[in-house]
Amino acid sequence: MTDRVSQLFGITHPIIAGGMVWCSGWRLAAAVSQAGGLGLLGAGSMSPEVLREQIAKCRAATTKPFGVNVPLMKPDAPAIMEVVAQERVPVVFTSAGSPKKWTAWLHDRNIKVAHVVASSVFARKCEAAGVDAVVAEGFEAGGHNGREETTTLCLIPAVRRATTLPLIAAGGVATGEAMLAVEALGAEGVQIGTRFALTVESSAHDAFKQRCLNLDEGDTKLLLRKLSPTRLVRGGFFDAIEQAEDAGATGEQLLEIIGNGKSRMGIFEGDLDNGELEIGQVASLLKGLPVQTVDQVFAEILGEYHKAKQRITDNGASLSV
Amino acid sequence: MTDRVSQLFGITHPIIAGGMVWCSGWRLAAAVSQAGGLGLLGAGSMSPEVLREQIAKCRAATTKPFGVNVPLMKPDAPAIMEVVAQERVPVVFTSAGSPKKWTAWLHDRNIKVAHVVASSVFARKCEAAGVDAVVAEGFEAGGHNGREETTTLCLIPAVRRATTLPLIAAGGVATGEAMLAVEALGAEGVQIGTRFALTVESSAHDAFKQRCLNLDEGDTKLLLRKLSPTRLVRGGFFDAIEQAEDAGATGEQLLEIIGNGKSRMGIFEGDLDNGELEIGQVASLLKGLPVQTVDQVFAEILGEYHKAKQRITDNGASLSV
Repeated sequence: MTDRVSQLFGITHPIIAGGMVWCSGWRLAAAVSQAGGLGLLGAGSMSPEVLREQIAKCRAATTKPFGVNVPLMKPDAPAIMEVVAQERVPVVFTSAGSPKKWTAWLHDRNIKVAHVVASSVFARKCEAAGVDAVVAEGFEAGGHNGREETTTLCLIPAVRRATTLPLIAAGGVATGEAMLAVEALGAEGVQIGTRFALTVESSAHDAFKQRCLNLDEGDTKLLLRKLSPTRLVRGGFFDAIEQAEDAGATGEQLLEIIGNGKSRMGIFEGDLDNGELEIGQVASLLKGLPVQTVDQVFAEILGEYHKAKQRITDNGASLSV
Repeated sequence: MTDRVSQLFGITHPIIAGGMVWCSGWRLAAAVSQAGGLGLLGAGSMSPEVLREQIAKCRAATTKPFGVNVPLMKPDAPAIMEVVAQERVPVVFTSAGSPKKWTAWLHDRNIKVAHVVASSVFARKCEAAGVDAVVAEGFEAGGHNGREETTTLCLIPAVRRATTLPLIAAGGVATGEAMLAVEALGAEGVQIGTRFALTVESSAHDAFKQRCLNLDEGDTKLLLRKLSPTRLVRGGFFDAIEQAEDAGATGEQLLEIIGNGKSRMGIFEGDLDNGELEIGQVASLLKGLPVQTVDQVFAEILGEYHKAKQRITDNGASLSV
């Protein structure tokens, strides 16, 4: 027996690597798929031409299924979708837009569709749109985030009630214990961002990885609520935005501070002072870890999951409930 | 075999009812203790004289152990502690202050001490101060909240690593599934606020209970970061603060808007437009429930916990990990 998420994507473990800007190139996606999960290329930071190259390299590195994450608010989303279809990528994860927009088009081309939501309202829209699986991502997640600020602990049970679709939990999941925890809440798989963004195979700059592996609790915060709520890491860019927001800056004023190309500068080029640094809140739980390979991450998470399950089911040690 | 939290407090189930302002009077505390959990009186909204009366009434209603929650920033905390000691209350939960301040004094009087934290830094301080148990409360919780904004999913594993003390999870826990989830993360018990605040036995106004049982996702938010971060329910009071903050209001300006007695007005007197309404984010998961008795809540949570555990351990249905 395999779970519904593994069945749907034809993978061994229901562990998906989030398709993250400037992190999720072919090396990360291929390594995750090779390890038995589902690797996603992050088209959010790729032109259609770059995506086509990345798909080719990923396919050369693994015969296992992989996918592409497409943020639907991206101006060139239609061209990105054409590349995905032409290259016969088997899976697309869509986010930041309506699940109605591309699902039928992708299904017509035999592509499986998962959509990322931050609320049960959008989960219901996913079911109505006919997507194959829903990713419910909580407030803990790095980067762009839902307006409701619903945490994974509160979101997963709400989405579980709202839909019968295969449910993948995201936000705050970096360990096997957390994987078991979201399973207890009704999830059938996990999408992991932060942990994979900080692996050897991630295309992020080493300075970014080192910084994110040395965060304390409270070193990421959700800012930019007047534009699109975004979880950022403390640093020069963060401070400039936080100070402006504390002083009542408008959305237009914030856009001026943000400027262009700041996430590339921070994550890909490693300019920690001036660049935009996006990582999940759970990074502080990884403090002091070395930059691990994807295989090491899989081995740890699977081991932790089994150990935690054993602990839970060992009646001698369980709670008096 | 019983778990460490149940052993420590001499209770049947490791379920503690948070000591909440204007909700946690003797009726709620006694009902929770009678049901096999640990009821707490919320001294945050009581004078020493009122607390003495409440202790007497609680003791008349149950022979089971119960406790008192004391927010240490309360100006009359010393007088509150004197009442607790004179009345021989067996357990005190301290919060909003240093665990060093009262732990030895309470231990000298044979009173067990748990301290509420929102970070692993403070959890370590608890262990150093010799407290008997630590409550780790995440961003989801209603009312006053930590500055780090760490969610329960990220906080519990961090605190679990920081201390060997019995660990009680709080924030976002209103169901048996969530209880199992935090156990997977390393918690040995739960402190539940929201669910008990909205029971028949809670001393909150019925209008407050009805409002909180009809919230959608996103209807509570953490505000007042420039003073003491506080999770509030949308309404007139919330709107006034949110608008002022969006415009860059200072802490002093926010204090003027808040005024005095607003939580009593909102929670106890049921003035939903002008009063301060505090509830946890998980309230939206309870939408549409009737106002239940404490016994009904216990029966549901215990049933859900066992059902979720059965689902997790049923190999036919489990994840391919």
